[in-house]
Amino acid sequence: MQIGRFITVEGGEGVGKTTNLAFIENWLRSRGHDVVRTREPGGTPLAESIREMLLSPRTEPMADLTELLLVFAARAQHIDQVIRPALEAGKWVLCDRFTDATFAYQGGGRQMDMQAITALEQLVQQSLRPDLTLLLDVPVETGMARASARSAPDRFESEQLAFFEAVREQYLCRARQEPDRFSIIDASPALEAVQDQIETALKAFEDGL
Amino acid sequence: MQIGRFITVEGGEGVGKTTNLAFIENWLRSRGHDVVRTREPGGTPLAESIREMLLSPRTEPMADLTELLLVFAARAQHIDQVIRPALEAGKWVLCDRFTDATFAYQGGGRQMDMQAITALEQLVQQSLRPDLTLLLDVPVETGMARASARSAPDRFESEQLAFFEAVREQYLCRARQEPDRFSIIDASPALEAVQDQIETALKAFEDGL
Repeated sequence: MQIGRFITVEGGEGVGKTTNLAFIENWLRSRGHDVVRTREPGGTPLAESIREMLLSPRTEPMADLTELLLVFAARAQHIDQVIRPALEAGKWVLCDRFTDATFAYQGGGRQMDMQAITALEQLVQQSLRPDLTLLLDVPVETGMARASARSAPDRFESEQLAFFEAVREQYLCRARQEPDRFSIIDASPALEAVQDQIETALKAFEDGL
Repeated sequence: MQIGRFITVEGGEGVGKTTNLAFIENWLRSRGHDVVRTREPGGTPLAESIREMLLSPRTEPMADLTELLLVFAARAQHIDQVIRPALEAGKWVLCDRFTDATFAYQGGGRQMDMQAITALEQLVQQSLRPDLTLLLDVPVETGMARASARSAPDRFESEQLAFFEAVREQYLCRARQEPDRFSIIDASPALEAVQDQIETALKAFEDGL
């Protein structure tokens, strides 16, 4: 039985995920929670091997379904070995990306079959869903400029722009569909203003428990 | 569009799969068919890496669902890169094990959720099914004795015995459910008598085209 809480942090490129994950982790610890911080794809040695398989360049093109099944294979292992045991032990799991990222990147960005993703989510997670998802959102051009420290996109970057627009749109679409679970954080302003919003969201979540 | 034919060879331990695969390949070539011989899990460099991940010993226990998703990730890649292109080019694909093995080993032997296997089969293969499946069948004790060159099972081997009985039972159950696709080959007698049966089955399949 789950007695801990499952918090995920989502967002595209250049939204400040890493910095804010550290802030969230520290904030949760300061409130006395036992935090397990982890990431996807990965989180166990085997799942990290699958991550490497997903990310390492190779000459053989990877079929969309292969990619999707590898993502969920890593997720099944992560849930089995890390997430479920931690939640059952009353810990708070803080995860850098989860299934919303699969919907956003593979479904939105790469236009893979959303029904296939939904079916795999059901198969692998059963009733497990994040209790709170913080979506760090910035306009795509801002995020890409931050990530690449460049401003004007060239032709290749313009294609990337369309891809990341689709990723962002899918994230925002999911956030609107599940407003109770999602908290959209405007990650455009200075860090302190972003972290004020995050703290407000975390406090509201705690108050609602 | 598939214009080639898809033949799979299935069976438990010690049924003589390797020897008979070579016989089948040669027989098909002698009839003028362009044969692609391959195997599962594997069949492409990436799928073979997944096979290694499945077979290599590790300290981290692999969750059942992880195993199943890796098997189907390898299969999706194999279908995309090898099986479908070959069938569409009019070749005959001869595959050492396919999804019946997943039902037999993971479903029967390891007692994983059959519905999950069926759902993944549908997702990954869509309408693709073998046109002919040769099931090499021997009693489990015979197969294990052949495979291990031992006769009396010890306690650990007795557990294996129950496992392989469940594998065999599942194979036979599937063969009875789909008699048009399956041909059960009694692999107990001498090789020549086994290959007579295989030749009869292949001729009947060819005649039915």
